[in-house]
Amino acid sequence: MDTIDDFKRDMVSACRILSRKKLVEGFGHVSARIPDSERFLMTPRIGLALVKESDILTLNFKGEVVEGNRQVPSEAWLHTAIMKSKPRVHAITRIHARAANIFSVTERQLEPVHNHGSFFAGGVPVFRRPDLITTEQLGNEVAQALGDAPAILLRGNGQVTVGRTIPEAVMMAIYLEEAAEVLYGALQIGKPIPLTFDESKQRRIEALPPVDLERAWNFFKHQAESNKE
Amino acid sequence: MDTIDDFKRDMVSACRILSRKKLVEGFGHVSARIPDSERFLMTPRIGLALVKESDILTLNFKGEVVEGNRQVPSEAWLHTAIMKSKPRVHAITRIHARAANIFSVTERQLEPVHNHGSFFAGGVPVFRRPDLITTEQLGNEVAQALGDAPAILLRGNGQVTVGRTIPEAVMMAIYLEEAAEVLYGALQIGKPIPLTFDESKQRRIEALPPVDLERAWNFFKHQAESNKE
Amino acid sequence: MDTIDDFKRDMVSACRILSRKKLVEGFGHVSARIPDSERFLMTPRIGLALVKESDILTLNFKGEVVEGNRQVPSEAWLHTAIMKSKPRVHAITRIHARAANIFSVTERQLEPVHNHGSFFAGGVPVFRRPDLITTEQLGNEVAQALGDAPAILLRGNGQVTVGRTIPEAVMMAIYLEEAAEVLYGALQIGKPIPLTFDESKQRRIEALPPVDLERAWNFFKHQAESNKE
Amino acid sequence: MDTIDDFKRDMVSACRILSRKKLVEGFGHVSARIPDSERFLMTPRIGLALVKESDILTLNFKGEVVEGNRQVPSEAWLHTAIMKSKPRVHAITRIHARAANIFSVTERQLEPVHNHGSFFAGGVPVFRRPDLITTEQLGNEVAQALGDAPAILLRGNGQVTVGRTIPEAVMMAIYLEEAAEVLYGALQIGKPIPLTFDESKQRRIEALPPVDLERAWNFFKHQAESNKE
Repeated sequence: MDTIDDFKRDMVSACRILSRKKLVEGFGHVSARIPDSERFLMTPRIGLALVKESDILTLNFKGEVVEGNRQVPSEAWLHTAIMKSKPRVHAITRIHARAANIFSVTERQLEPVHNHGSFFAGGVPVFRRPDLITTEQLGNEVAQALGDAPAILLRGNGQVTVGRTIPEAVMMAIYLEEAAEVLYGALQIGKPIPLTFDESKQRRIEALPPVDLERAWNFFKHQAESNKE
Repeated sequence: MDTIDDFKRDMVSACRILSRKKLVEGFGHVSARIPDSERFLMTPRIGLALVKESDILTLNFKGEVVEGNRQVPSEAWLHTAIMKSKPRVHAITRIHARAANIFSVTERQLEPVHNHGSFFAGGVPVFRRPDLITTEQLGNEVAQALGDAPAILLRGNGQVTVGRTIPEAVMMAIYLEEAAEVLYGALQIGKPIPLTFDESKQRRIEALPPVDLERAWNFFKHQAESNKE
Repeated sequence: MDTIDDFKRDMVSACRILSRKKLVEGFGHVSARIPDSERFLMTPRIGLALVKESDILTLNFKGEVVEGNRQVPSEAWLHTAIMKSKPRVHAITRIHARAANIFSVTERQLEPVHNHGSFFAGGVPVFRRPDLITTEQLGNEVAQALGDAPAILLRGNGQVTVGRTIPEAVMMAIYLEEAAEVLYGALQIGKPIPLTFDESKQRRIEALPPVDLERAWNFFKHQAESNKE
Repeated sequence: MDTIDDFKRDMVSACRILSRKKLVEGFGHVSARIPDSERFLMTPRIGLALVKESDILTLNFKGEVVEGNRQVPSEAWLHTAIMKSKPRVHAITRIHARAANIFSVTERQLEPVHNHGSFFAGGVPVFRRPDLITTEQLGNEVAQALGDAPAILLRGNGQVTVGRTIPEAVMMAIYLEEAAEVLYGALQIGKPIPLTFDESKQRRIEALPPVDLERAWNFFKHQAESNKE
């Protein structure tokens, strides 16, 4: 079973991957639930490329820092509200992906057309208020708008993805941006052919068996660490 | 004459080139026929950036692993079906090129407009089912849809390219994506002028004499190895 | 309190960041006011990627070099006019950002749609004459057209951003290009939803508290220095 | 006065710069006149990223190699015809720039809208035959179509730029692609405002005084050598 040190190590890997993929620059956060507790780990108010394991904070479900010396992010309530209300969620990324952001500032829905987009079948929800999520109430509203989806767009203000594990939340971030980029491109050259409900369902099953999730995670970790390819 | 070790070395170079060109990220595979046999070499179920020569599997035409310890890819049938049915094909790449993928999710045909696109004269075939190619039947259907073409788009699910050698299959992957990018751009600013049948034929002859194939291969290998330029 | 050496060090960091973000290539300049004086520091006529602290010039408000051996930029009047007429401005970047440049050569206004764009609420002013700003009169005209805004587009000729500090002027450069890129993308897929006046005002307050300005600055400095991520 | 060794050294810098800027990948060439002679230097049939000074060939105006052991490019006639017919030209780049290529495969003219594009006022000529330039006659036709312009597009087949010096020919390559990228972008968001004849003339004078040409050349050389920024 994973220890807290394992989670912290994976969170730092997540930070490096999200930076390497340009899904964050100076801002954004990663959090991970401490299983069977009312606590979670969260990166502090520094750029993800710079986060070290020793910087990671522990918060409780009241949004209070219970361990760690670094400054708490202004959007701690976003993570707190999701962790508290959604036991299925064990990890959250708060990112600023470019193509997904573009969809959030138009009425165009982000609907999947390619295989890795199948997780977003039916369209990605959008939280229309452009504020930072700095209060308990705003946190709860985002959590509610997210529902059972793996991702939500915050209008003009980045995205949130969730997963049952840290790698899954990170892959949802990567696939969300991929889905946005492919749909964006398709809209430039013709009429996109969306995945049907059944196609999405089948592709979701195929697209993320544990072995392939681990495969993708290993690749992106390698890429981030070697700063190559 | 090339030995199996030469093929494996070239397969690893192919993996590095495809990664460096972002034609694959975590997924994708490369395979190469063992001449005068009913066997072929194939990369295992790991990201191509990570593949070493010792990881490469040997499969027979029943899709069975006959040598190697790594896990077999879920799409082994795709490679098996093509290798079995098309003696002219000695190498296959299974990639996820972005611009080509965009064409696969609209009704817009990917028709060549630039010189290196001439190999795709008449348009690149599209396999419309978005499933992973995990069965013998699906493998056969893709092989049939490919016909004599050097490439096929799998709807929302990447591409397959083939060649008489490993470098040729890799260059088809690079040129396919180039063809998609140039056509995509042309569609944004006006009416693309396709190569005529005769122009394509002439350009195909000019574009890939062995000396230039080797020239391109050497460049991309250098680029991938030095991680520069 | 910052010394002149501190300013020079931050100017070199600014040069590296702007180069790393491709907001300048061979051209562009950075300047910084020497507080409580009628002088300012300015990079010389060399590419920003190459500027060292010892290259930095000191100019007075007549546009004369009073310290330094390097050649003065042909656009020194641009910086002189702004420094002289706008005491609130302590730092200037003169950049050539691609997406912002595209807006300057059409009638389309660059209006913010995303959070970091809120500084540009109401639209970025455009200076319509495509000349280099090589005279006192042109310098004054640009300063006047800039008004109280944090940025101005020079038609087909790059941009100017200003700030109360060097990091702020640099972040305005980064956010200006981000704003242009997001609006550009939104225009390709639908009707962009601009930030309202009130939304912009609120976001401006949230987007650049000193702690987050420093956070972003630290990240971009790290990125430029490590040439990573 | 420059010696042949100086020219060769600058040609290798040109090769690195064009590779670093992705204006060439596996293909393309650079040539430079040997002053007061009927000879010129030319890169051989290898990727520009790999060219060393010792690889450079000397050709005469009959297209014959008079010095050097490497294989002569199939397009030697292109360079020969321009060198022979245009004494003003001292250097040529043969490149494959992406955005400029896109213009060549539509009827849309590549007309300058931004400052560095001013060299191309009136529009860049296009050679409509998509063949490689492998004969004396084709070489002469391209030379004639080029006329007094600094650049010509070969339909679907890259570009040629010329200059009075190696740095000038390289900067024309960089500015040509910039001009194409800015116009491409402008066409996506509105009606591009072209530079008028007078504006172009003025900007041309301002844009390339020897000091700024050297400044840009130094920057791009630094960038290519350090593989940074």
